[in-house]
Parts: sequence; C-alpha cells; structure tokens
Amino acid sequence: MRMRQSGSPARITALAGGIGGARFLRGLIAAAPDAEITVIGNTGDDIWIHGLRVCPDLDTVMYTLGGGISEERGWGRQDETFTVKDELAAYGMEPSWFGLGDRDIATHLVRTQLLAAGYPLSAVTEALCLRWAPGVRLLPMSDERAETHVVVDEEGGTQRAIHFQEWWVRHQARIPARAFVLVGVDDAKPAPGVIEAIEGADAVVLPPSNPVVSIGTILQVPGIREALGRTPAPVVGVSPIIGGRPVRGMADACLTALGVETSAAAVAAHYGARDAGGVLDGWLVDDADAGDVDTVARLGIACEARPLLMSTPDDTRAIAAAALDLAARLRS
Amino acid sequence: MRMRQSGSPARITALAGGIGGARFLRGLIAAAPDAEITVIGNTGDDIWIHGLRVCPDLDTVMYTLGGGISEERGWGRQDETFTVKDELAAYGMEPSWFGLGDRDIATHLVRTQLLAAGYPLSAVTEALCLRWAPGVRLLPMSDERAETHVVVDEEGGTQRAIHFQEWWVRHQARIPARAFVLVGVDDAKPAPGVIEAIEGADAVVLPPSNPVVSIGTILQVPGIREALGRTPAPVVGVSPIIGGRPVRGMADACLTALGVETSAAAVAAHYGARDAGGVLDGWLVDDADAGDVDTVARLGIACEARPLLMSTPDDTRAIAAAALDLAARLRS
Repeated sequence: MRMRQSGSPARITALAGGIGGARFLRGLIAAAPDAEITVIGNTGDDIWIHGLRVCPDLDTVMYTLGGGISEERGWGRQDETFTVKDELAAYGMEPSWFGLGDRDIATHLVRTQLLAAGYPLSAVTEALCLRWAPGVRLLPMSDERAETHVVVDEEGGTQRAIHFQEWWVRHQARIPARAFVLVGVDDAKPAPGVIEAIEGADAVVLPPSNPVVSIGTILQVPGIREALGRTPAPVVGVSPIIGGRPVRGMADACLTALGVETSAAAVAAHYGARDAGGVLDGWLVDDADAGDVDTVARLGIACEARPLLMSTPDDTRAIAAAALDLAARLRS
Repeated sequence: MRMRQSGSPARITALAGGIGGARFLRGLIAAAPDAEITVIGNTGDDIWIHGLRVCPDLDTVMYTLGGGISEERGWGRQDETFTVKDELAAYGMEPSWFGLGDRDIATHLVRTQLLAAGYPLSAVTEALCLRWAPGVRLLPMSDERAETHVVVDEEGGTQRAIHFQEWWVRHQARIPARAFVLVGVDDAKPAPGVIEAIEGADAVVLPPSNPVVSIGTILQVPGIREALGRTPAPVVGVSPIIGGRPVRGMADACLTALGVETSAAAVAAHYGARDAGGVLDGWLVDDADAGDVDTVARLGIACEARPLLMSTPDDTRAIAAAALDLAARLRS
C-alpha cells in the first residue's frame, strides 16, 4: 500500500458489523499494527430495551478489540451473569428474549445516561472506548437513530414489520424476511468523521460482515455510498460466504430476502464494481470458491481466492494482510 | 379498635420510612391480619442514579413485606450481587458510593421505564407491588419529585446543599447537618389515595421511622399534615428513640440539626399533640424511657411505656398490637 508521507502511518477505514467484522478487525490490527484504523460501525441493529440504548455491533467491536468479549458466544461480555435479565422476567417485562447481561448493562447505562445528557452517539462511543482502548477509532455510522426492521408475513396474507433484533434473536431468522427497512435512514447523516475517514483513507476494507444487515445498512446512510464511490482509496472486501454458506450468522436468510444467491460471487455482484456504480475494487473469496474468481473479475472487480476461515488469530491476520496487499496493488 | 361496620375489616394507615418502618409494618400485618393497611411511603430519599429512578424507602417496604429483602443489610435484595455497580465504576461513573445491586437494578429499570412512559410513581409502585404482593397498599407520599437535601458547612465558612443520599450513604451522616431542605415540595401534592387513606382510617400509625427525614418528610407534603389534623382516626406513634439513642439509623444526627434532643419525649414534643396543632394522639416509649411518660402526657399525648426493641417477629407484632390497642382506647 502506498504510504501517505514518509513516516506517517497508513490510514485504513473499515465498515463493520458484529462478530465476523470484529474478529476480522482483530486480524487487521495485527496485520497493520502501525496503521491508523477507523471503524465505521453498523448501528442499524440498535434497539431500546428496558429503557436502555443498546448498540450490539458497536459493543461487539469494542469488547472484542478491548479484550472484554465472550469468546464462546462471540457477543457480550466474558464471565457474564444474567441476574438483571432474570429479575426483569420475574416482573413480567418484555422483551425477555434479548440477552442482556449484567456487565453489558453497565455499558448501556453509561450510554443511555450520556445520550440523555445530550451527547451524540459518536461522542458516547468515544467515551466508552476510553475504557476499552480498542486500538481503532470506532465511529457509529450515524448519530441519528436508524433501525432495521424486517417485513414478515402474517397469517391472513398481510405483512408486518418487526425490529431486526426480534427477527434475528427471537426468531433466529427462521421467519422468511420479505424486505428490510431501515426506519429513520432518510433523516440520518453520517456521524462526524465518517466521510472524512472514507475519503482520507489509503485503503477501505469491507470485512466478512453480513452484506445486507451490517455493511448493507451502513451503505444506506445518505452520503456513505457516495463517499465510497469517490475516495481515492481502493475498496477491498472479504467474502462472508464460503462454499455457498455464511461462515457464521444467518446472512443466507438476509440475501434470500433480496433475491441474492448465497454465494461469494453473488455478494460481490450485489456490492457491485466501483467502476459500475458499486463499491468494490477488490474481492477476496475462499479457495472453495475459486471458481467464482473469473465471474467476479468480469464484473470489473479484482478477485483472488485464498483461505478465508478465521480459525486462528494467525489465519485472521493473514486474511487481513491479503486484503491490504490487494488494496496496495490496486492503488499502485 | 372500633370496627367500621360489622364484618368489615379495620382500616389502618401508616406513614413509613425505610428499614425501621418496614420491620414495624411486618409486625403490624401480623397484629392485624384482617385489616386493610395503607402505607404512605417516604419518597424524599429518592434519587436519580446512573439514569435510574431509585426509591429506597418504597423498595425497602416492598422487599421487606414481599419477602425479597436482605435481612442482614436491611435494605436491598437478598442474594444480591453487584456486578453492574463494579462495571460502572470501571467506566469511572459517579456516584460509586451508592449500593446499587443487580437484582435491585431490575426494579429501577422497570420503574424508570414506566415513568418515562408517563405513568405516575403511584401507578408504577402499584405495578411493582403486583410481583411482591406486600400485603399492604403502598402509596408514595407524592407523585411529584421532592428530594431531601442537606445543608452542610464548606471550608471557608460557606454552606452547600448535598443530596440526602450523599450525606447519608457516602458521608454516613458524619458531616454535621445544618438544615434539611425538601427540594420541590412546594409543587408536590399528596399521591392519589393518600388523603383518603388518612381521613378514612380507623387508626393512623407512625412507625419508629426517622422522625426528621422519613416521617418528617412525609408531613411536609402540602395537605398531609392537615389531613392528619382532621382525621377522626387516632394517630399513634412508636418512638424510634430508646434510651436516648436511635434504635437504628442515624436519627440523632437529624434531630440535632433541628435542635431537637435525641430522646423519646423530645421526639413526641417535636411531632406535637393533635390538640395543639401537632399530629399525635398517642405515643409509645420503651420501658427504658418510662421516665418520659409523664412529660409526654403533659403535652396532651397519651403515652405508655413497653418494650420497643423489634428483636423478633413476635416482639414486633406485640409492639404493633400495643399501638393498635392504644389507638382503639383513644378512639372509644
């Protein structure tokens, strides 16, 4: 990758969802320890629960990079307890299906209190990160509330929209999604620093996050897709689909709702080549999808196959290094 | 005590603070199991902590009568943990001196959420009591926010007012209190049902709660003292002072601020005889204060000495029964 100035670190900007994005970011930090990394986090999953403002994806990034994540679950705090949740259920309070841990609740109390005091989410996130020191600058995609809702069928032939978390957590994405609606997005603006981080980057990376309800949500914030279109930095993505299946999560259920096939090539086509109005210059697929390389290349997206399973920290670092290497070659 | 109608239960109304009041109420229920008991709870101790609305005295009554209290501490929940509190401290959030337990926090989350939805505190308290079934009707003294602040000396000869909880919990009442100010009381009204409960009672009881910052606070809500003055029910109090010392708590520090001696007789005089514009018809003192009986009687308050230490459930029941018995004799 071309450095900006002799001696100045590379500037990398990543768009990220939750678990998959956070794990990739750990590898990115390891691959570029001297880089200034800005993460634009998805806040379309955010939800008010029991009067608390919960930002699952921001917290997953913050906890993962800050050493507080539950490695087993992939979300929430390690050594977590669920006393408050059980007590809320004893009061009959709904929703009872959201995993609100005691340690986690402290984060939400701080956030909710600071938001109530008038601080924007970006400032609140910065304040929370003072404790976690994630090693990246973590920005919410927007300071405005814009939450994903899922259109599902009701009995009788009608449809209704439920909050993304109800669909994802309560129903485990088992109800067919007919559409995703980012409620509030028309009034949302990119959070301070987001556009600058995209325009001023040496490389923009799309981790193997959910292309619909994580990265796709970020791209819906007015101005972000346009900034990706005009940034001088190459934009390189890592496929979240390996061998026709999501590596983790339920991206297939999301892609199906959009009529997109669950394949590495179809996701690349869904993102689209920058030259053709999309967002990608480069795309990494797994060796299992080496057959997709030519298909993607024909879209105008530089595509390479390599192992993409983030099984170990070394594997993950190598994937991130490959993405940065592809970006460097695209830039030079 | 005179019954209202043949077959209808006695109606007893009690004004109560926290631990001492709650324990006395347990005895009152045991002494009058068929009575309809209304408790008017002190909300002058209430505080916003970390964005949560905390009502320590209401909760102490609710938990004590509902079987959820920590018997060891006297406040908060049994089998309590403090994970959220420790995490908030890790974020550097103040105040860190308030004992906010995990189980307890669920109560505050429910309350805060219902208040935010527009329900008055009285309705919220009723909703919380659906779970705890305390066996009494628990009413806050007021739905309006009115919080006790304590005037203390600063270096340099000036004074400042701190929240009651900061004085009581953080400073353990060790800083001399110069005055107590119930901020907001001018705009406070008795909660729905409070005046009716006083006017319609067969007996009104003042448990051995703090006469200054618990009962005294309730009496400051405009209309409550007047209702006590005109109710046909006798008003009988139980001394919180035994042998010149508070049975528990730090009532002496509060009385001193008002220039009131810490003695059973002085507290009776502070409350005053109803005939002389005060609130008491009867007053129970401990055997240790038998020498005060004549002094109190000369104020126009029927006074009797008996054991007042609430050491066992039976002792407590007997004290409550003695208060009801005195009330019955005053009424007939």
